[in-house]
Amino acid sequence: MHAYRSHTCAALTAANAGETVRLSGWVHRVRDHGGVLFIDLRDHYGITQIICDGDSPAFAALEKVRAEWVIRIDGTVKPRAPELINPKIPTGEIEVYAREMEVLGAADELPLPVFGDQDYPEETRLAYRFLDLRRDSLHQKMILRSNVVRSLRNRMWDAGFNEFQTPIITASSPEGARDFLVPSRLHPGKFYALPQAPQQFKQLIMVAGFDRYFQIAPCFRDEDPRADRSPTDFYQLDIEMSFIEQEDVFATVQPVVQGMFEEFGTGKTVDPVWPKIAYKDALLWYGSDKPDLRNPIKMADVSAQFRDSGFGIFAKLLENEGTEIRAIPAPTGGSRKFCDRMNAFAQANGLPGMGYIFWRKAEDGTMEAAGPIAKALGAERTESIRTQLELNEGDAVFFLGGKAEQFEAVAGKARNEIGRELGLTEEGVFRFCWIVDFPMYEKTDDGKIDFSHNPFSMPQGGLEALQGDPLKVLGYQYDLACNGYELISGAIRNHDLEIMYKAFEIAGYPASEVDKRFGGMAKAFKFGAPPHGGCAMGIDRAVMLLADESNIREVIMFPMNQRAEDLMMGAPSLPTNEQLRELRLRVLPKEA
Amino acid sequence: MHAYRSHTCAALTAANAGETVRLSGWVHRVRDHGGVLFIDLRDHYGITQIICDGDSPAFAALEKVRAEWVIRIDGTVKPRAPELINPKIPTGEIEVYAREMEVLGAADELPLPVFGDQDYPEETRLAYRFLDLRRDSLHQKMILRSNVVRSLRNRMWDAGFNEFQTPIITASSPEGARDFLVPSRLHPGKFYALPQAPQQFKQLIMVAGFDRYFQIAPCFRDEDPRADRSPTDFYQLDIEMSFIEQEDVFATVQPVVQGMFEEFGTGKTVDPVWPKIAYKDALLWYGSDKPDLRNPIKMADVSAQFRDSGFGIFAKLLENEGTEIRAIPAPTGGSRKFCDRMNAFAQANGLPGMGYIFWRKAEDGTMEAAGPIAKALGAERTESIRTQLELNEGDAVFFLGGKAEQFEAVAGKARNEIGRELGLTEEGVFRFCWIVDFPMYEKTDDGKIDFSHNPFSMPQGGLEALQGDPLKVLGYQYDLACNGYELISGAIRNHDLEIMYKAFEIAGYPASEVDKRFGGMAKAFKFGAPPHGGCAMGIDRAVMLLADESNIREVIMFPMNQRAEDLMMGAPSLPTNEQLRELRLRVLPKEA
Repeated sequence: MHAYRSHTCAALTAANAGETVRLSGWVHRVRDHGGVLFIDLRDHYGITQIICDGDSPAFAALEKVRAEWVIRIDGTVKPRAPELINPKIPTGEIEVYAREMEVLGAADELPLPVFGDQDYPEETRLAYRFLDLRRDSLHQKMILRSNVVRSLRNRMWDAGFNEFQTPIITASSPEGARDFLVPSRLHPGKFYALPQAPQQFKQLIMVAGFDRYFQIAPCFRDEDPRADRSPTDFYQLDIEMSFIEQEDVFATVQPVVQGMFEEFGTGKTVDPVWPKIAYKDALLWYGSDKPDLRNPIKMADVSAQFRDSGFGIFAKLLENEGTEIRAIPAPTGGSRKFCDRMNAFAQANGLPGMGYIFWRKAEDGTMEAAGPIAKALGAERTESIRTQLELNEGDAVFFLGGKAEQFEAVAGKARNEIGRELGLTEEGVFRFCWIVDFPMYEKTDDGKIDFSHNPFSMPQGGLEALQGDPLKVLGYQYDLACNGYELISGAIRNHDLEIMYKAFEIAGYPASEVDKRFGGMAKAFKFGAPPHGGCAMGIDRAVMLLADESNIREVIMFPMNQRAEDLMMGAPSLPTNEQLRELRLRVLPKEA
Repeated sequence: MHAYRSHTCAALTAANAGETVRLSGWVHRVRDHGGVLFIDLRDHYGITQIICDGDSPAFAALEKVRAEWVIRIDGTVKPRAPELINPKIPTGEIEVYAREMEVLGAADELPLPVFGDQDYPEETRLAYRFLDLRRDSLHQKMILRSNVVRSLRNRMWDAGFNEFQTPIITASSPEGARDFLVPSRLHPGKFYALPQAPQQFKQLIMVAGFDRYFQIAPCFRDEDPRADRSPTDFYQLDIEMSFIEQEDVFATVQPVVQGMFEEFGTGKTVDPVWPKIAYKDALLWYGSDKPDLRNPIKMADVSAQFRDSGFGIFAKLLENEGTEIRAIPAPTGGSRKFCDRMNAFAQANGLPGMGYIFWRKAEDGTMEAAGPIAKALGAERTESIRTQLELNEGDAVFFLGGKAEQFEAVAGKARNEIGRELGLTEEGVFRFCWIVDFPMYEKTDDGKIDFSHNPFSMPQGGLEALQGDPLKVLGYQYDLACNGYELISGAIRNHDLEIMYKAFEIAGYPASEVDKRFGGMAKAFKFGAPPHGGCAMGIDRAVMLLADESNIREVIMFPMNQRAEDLMMGAPSLPTNEQLRELRLRVLPKEA
């Protein structure tokens, strides 16, 4: 017989009754029912109930085992009495009568129990991650992540892509965050950088003539702590294709992502219709470039109805250039109580408040518009708003006014809040949309023109478009949003060096700066670069959505804490003097 | 029609004759046959011949294209005349008559041609890696590597393993090489380390209750330059299993590796018999712990025949303790010329020489032993050697004497040389063997006891064995050798903290040192650790064997040069003052 197991702890059924078996695993739970021991023995696969009484030679030893000891049991499979069958587990029809026991690994008293659902401080959980990972919920999330990654790989391969590994100890590849540096021992004073993304390498792979690349790629960013972000490294599904346009990327990616959500969405519906929404429409309609389409609320510009109207505040406001009045329709929200609550929500989020109108049944049985704005605006304009937004008795509408960038974020939040409060936002469904037509440039606070998103994207209209107003130039750049989260970001790349130099020049970077910062790519584009583009999907984010989990550390095997420390391994730590000497480095005192 | 292609450059056959098609790719070669242009258009998938003459509106533009320009061609598929059909390529039955051409990416004059087999200095090839990778041979090796990795993953998944990613920015995990350090910005003065291997993490995954782990894992070692090694990072297929013994690892790994070699071995035979050879037998028989079993030569100890014999040098030598006479049989090597050449080989490798005997046909037609040793040894002892080694007329045997560790490496080399020179070593086959029973400890030059291989391996015989002579303790540790290369290394781990402390104590490390250096693992073993073990296979090495390639840089997409520099991206490079300030580091001048 095998030294440790004839079966796993999930394998035995009534069909095995009478067999002599060997099981190994962790002591999940021990119960002593007056001279009869019941032990739930757990391994990766499941749980089997071990039973033992004083007649067994193993009894004395088994009496001593404690939770999380690793033991081996030899025993006989017995069918359970019908009333004792546990239909929830595959081994629920049987138990194993223990005749021999061996301790394979004892355990000290636990800082964190494995059995039970009791919550523990995260710092304890991270310091004893190997215990926390034994708990069923976390265990299952790791398996989910593993299966998701497998599925993604297979889907990409089936779509004709090759997976290639790109360098990790390499040159700086700026993506807007800080690089992690790695001092070179062979070249003291010089440093490697860990890639923020394989962006340059995947583009070089295209220039090297490989048509379709993907990688589940580690990315490294020295980020300041944030709750939903790993402070050091994360994985992304990284994709790049040659001789393609934006629509080809969409057509390639949708089946992969949709298939993954269908496979692992645990019964949630996956909407197969993925609308394409222009960036500026997304902001107008949803107040967000990653809208949650489970929420049916679509905002609208109602400036026309307020211009020169009797509602003085908004009428006056509209006299300033670049202002507008935005309406957030709230079907079924037509009560003063709800409207006042939402007004308070806006105030709590830093705005003066949200005006509103709601429609109710008047005493004469007809529909009437209520609220101070309706009165000031007058019946005709109020009715025009109601018609435009397709609202009815029992519904409400909220208004925000000013420059869009000042209220848009709160408008988006209010839309979420209204959708949730009124139960308008669907549950149990994943809704996707592509956000397209991102502007290439934006005006910074000090009035300069800078890239608003990815500087490597191809501007729509090419070189010609760059001769005009830069703020009007759109890029072939796109995001995929799912249920309010950005899941994918990508672009058709600027593979034409002339256009690239011009694009950077507009943002204030001379060609020499491009050559210095992106030298490998700039050089490569001089020797026959194909049109190409791609995208990247955050693996952590995808698994979080599938597991309905908002803490990123719940979907990573060995995460850092929010201060970028590994409490289990004790990282970072002080180097030895010899290490510093070999690298020719000195750590400066705090005062420096 | 699609903006870039209706077909790839490998898709068109005679069945497409008459169709209007669109192709995009690189200009592989241009030939001008007096007013008729022939262009080989290449993409990732293949090559299609484009033809154009003065009647085509595209002629003037096409006359200007040069090698490695990226162009789009619109044209008509024409069958080739039977005598012009090229059966070597899938598109060899047709050509495309070009009617329209667009330049998608022009190319400067090339520092390195893509067409043709001309060799170029490696520094040029690395600096223009994106051009070198377009060459068919390198392109195919990258595809091979990608397919090998895919196959390995699928085989591991099919064997019931889950792939998990382990941290890259983490704590030092000493494996005998230097760590790469990563300075922490949030904790100035402290450093992360890049893992030399996921050794501790994979063992923690087992302690966390996952039964079967694998990963195609990046590993980082700050190594001094060596030709066949990547100086910074490499990938390994990393495997770990719980509740298993050594034989279970073998039974799991063999089908995976054998299957991979059968799938990608391009017609070479894969020997399904993988003998297990004890470490000390491997050294005795083959002079190597990674023997090439394609070579049938098996060395033997012939000390008995030389002890107190008339061959004074060896007889005298054997009077010293720990010495022996090793015989290298050389079937068909029975000529003075060959024997003298091998003697010279031994001298060139730092030994005084190799004595020999060879057997030839005497003038009277009988077999006679020739050479000075045969004479000195006498007929009976000479015949005893011949019988022991199963040699015959036309064969030879070489002798090396002294302490095994002094001559063994050269003996191994001589065995290789003899096998190759005499044509004994088979071609076209992969032969594997497991090397087992590695000693746990060795005596260092200064007489101390130290670990000879992996300190985390379980000693055979457990705690009890560690009470005796440490130099006699064997470990549950194993290597897989293939055709003379170490392909896999692994062990059953020491999961018992008491045994681990004892094992380290013997090597001179107190428990406190174990806790300090391997704190995460030591802590975990206190809370219920299962018996476990595993192994790791170098991906580069496997692909090198499959591609019959001895330069590691030929199987890596973007390799460093031997000075650990990335010539294409310009790494490592000088950091900015701001970066150093943020990390609170100062680079010391060279004098320091």
